[in-house]
Amino acid sequence: MSVAYLNGAFLPLADIRISPLDRGFLFADGIYEVAAVIDGRLVDSASHLARLERSTAAIGITLPLSLPAIEAVQKELVARNALAEGLVYLQITRGADMTRDFIAPAGLQPTLFLFVQDKPFLDVPAVRDGIAVATMPDLRWARRDIKSVGLLAQAMAKQAAKDAGAQEAWMVEDGFVTEGASSTAFIVTDEGIVTRPYSQAVLAGCTGAALAALAQESGIAVIRRPFTVAQALAAKEAFITSASTLCQSVVRIDGQAIGDGTPGPVAMRLRALYIDFARATAV
Amino acid sequence: MSVAYLNGAFLPLADIRISPLDRGFLFADGIYEVAAVIDGRLVDSASHLARLERSTAAIGITLPLSLPAIEAVQKELVARNALAEGLVYLQITRGADMTRDFIAPAGLQPTLFLFVQDKPFLDVPAVRDGIAVATMPDLRWARRDIKSVGLLAQAMAKQAAKDAGAQEAWMVEDGFVTEGASSTAFIVTDEGIVTRPYSQAVLAGCTGAALAALAQESGIAVIRRPFTVAQALAAKEAFITSASTLCQSVVRIDGQAIGDGTPGPVAMRLRALYIDFARATAV
Repeated sequence: MSVAYLNGAFLPLADIRISPLDRGFLFADGIYEVAAVIDGRLVDSASHLARLERSTAAIGITLPLSLPAIEAVQKELVARNALAEGLVYLQITRGADMTRDFIAPAGLQPTLFLFVQDKPFLDVPAVRDGIAVATMPDLRWARRDIKSVGLLAQAMAKQAAKDAGAQEAWMVEDGFVTEGASSTAFIVTDEGIVTRPYSQAVLAGCTGAALAALAQESGIAVIRRPFTVAQALAAKEAFITSASTLCQSVVRIDGQAIGDGTPGPVAMRLRALYIDFARATAV
Repeated sequence: MSVAYLNGAFLPLADIRISPLDRGFLFADGIYEVAAVIDGRLVDSASHLARLERSTAAIGITLPLSLPAIEAVQKELVARNALAEGLVYLQITRGADMTRDFIAPAGLQPTLFLFVQDKPFLDVPAVRDGIAVATMPDLRWARRDIKSVGLLAQAMAKQAAKDAGAQEAWMVEDGFVTEGASSTAFIVTDEGIVTRPYSQAVLAGCTGAALAALAQESGIAVIRRPFTVAQALAAKEAFITSASTLCQSVVRIDGQAIGDGTPGPVAMRLRALYIDFARATAV
């Protein structure tokens, strides 16, 4: 039985219940983070916690625990579940009201919920074979830099991608790829690796940022520039990054092969570098 | 103690709990409706139920009850709470999973939650005095015709409007008013009443549609055309419609008086017509 956490208590996940008047349920008034666990330790934790702090600050939610205390809860959950490889999911909402009002009352106590997913992701077919991506219109709101739980557009894009035989959706706006529905999008060209610059149009990916730094250290140029679907189709390689996939090659976009249609050397090298980094810095 | 409804059971609202793995909580993967109650009866019910059916169909959620059965639950809640004047809130989500995955598993049972708000709204200061509106950038997603619970942008706009001394936010995109954060926006000109045409950029307001029909029947032209903030500021009157406000005059926009700065005759006449209609057709 998986052990989870709600507002100070460690409980069986199946026993955890929240109020339907929680603003996370009524208004998507909440923030989330997903951290990878490798060898029973949290990957790139400081980066995820810093983003958590930025997202909650952006919508005016005060964290009920300090970042070190939140990390201690994450570690406790990893330990209690004897989690070797998987994910720690964290969600914080503005809290549960006594009624429903767009304006949150003063003094609401935020809801903090965490649970783990025992989910091997290091040695999976998607790594060996690469994944297929389907492009979809980007229907999301204008503040994608805030990691809010308002994820209906992403869920719809993922479902549409699955229906098209793909494992991820790349969202397209004004002809340019913004990002994946739950990942950062990269292509490999003769110049180096290309990914969209930071702005309110995309989430600042933790895994993508760390991987880009590793690329630069190893002599691969990182170009932060929007790219079109046509440029992606013409790229030597393409790949995604996220906490739950780390780095996976994209071998088909909308049914067309990228490069020779198999995982490329740049993405595989960066994946290996990232896993080394993750193991060396996990806490 | 207020009685609410969850998945077939009538229970005290304070006792109702849901799983944090409900997709409404994790992904804002749900739809809602708010129906007004006057004299203990549901206002404009068929219109709200038809929109509920459109919204759920748009995101592929199958209603767990027929529309007549849902209306029977609403009526039962009104009766059990002896609600004379107020609101019935309804939310349906894709259901609670055993884990978290953007792709919903097959066979998920939707979550249906309803509760009532005992909230007089016929004789309130906002009607007598009119309300102030603040304009805000429209940050929402591209499918505002779907009445989803992904309401963070609206909640942020409402809070910012409140901070600016206003009771509602009018959201502005490309120079044109789309709609209120939780209402439909109208202005009154020499031509008649002007409101934004139906599209994916706005929610098709039930109250606004009924009121527009009443306006036409009474000889007031209804012009479905986008209007700018400048056009609103220069209008003879402005007003909002929604289930929870019915029709309220907007007497200030961004601090500037509209007309003579008091509720105008067209809005007040339409409000009276709407209340007559509501009483005559409530179920």
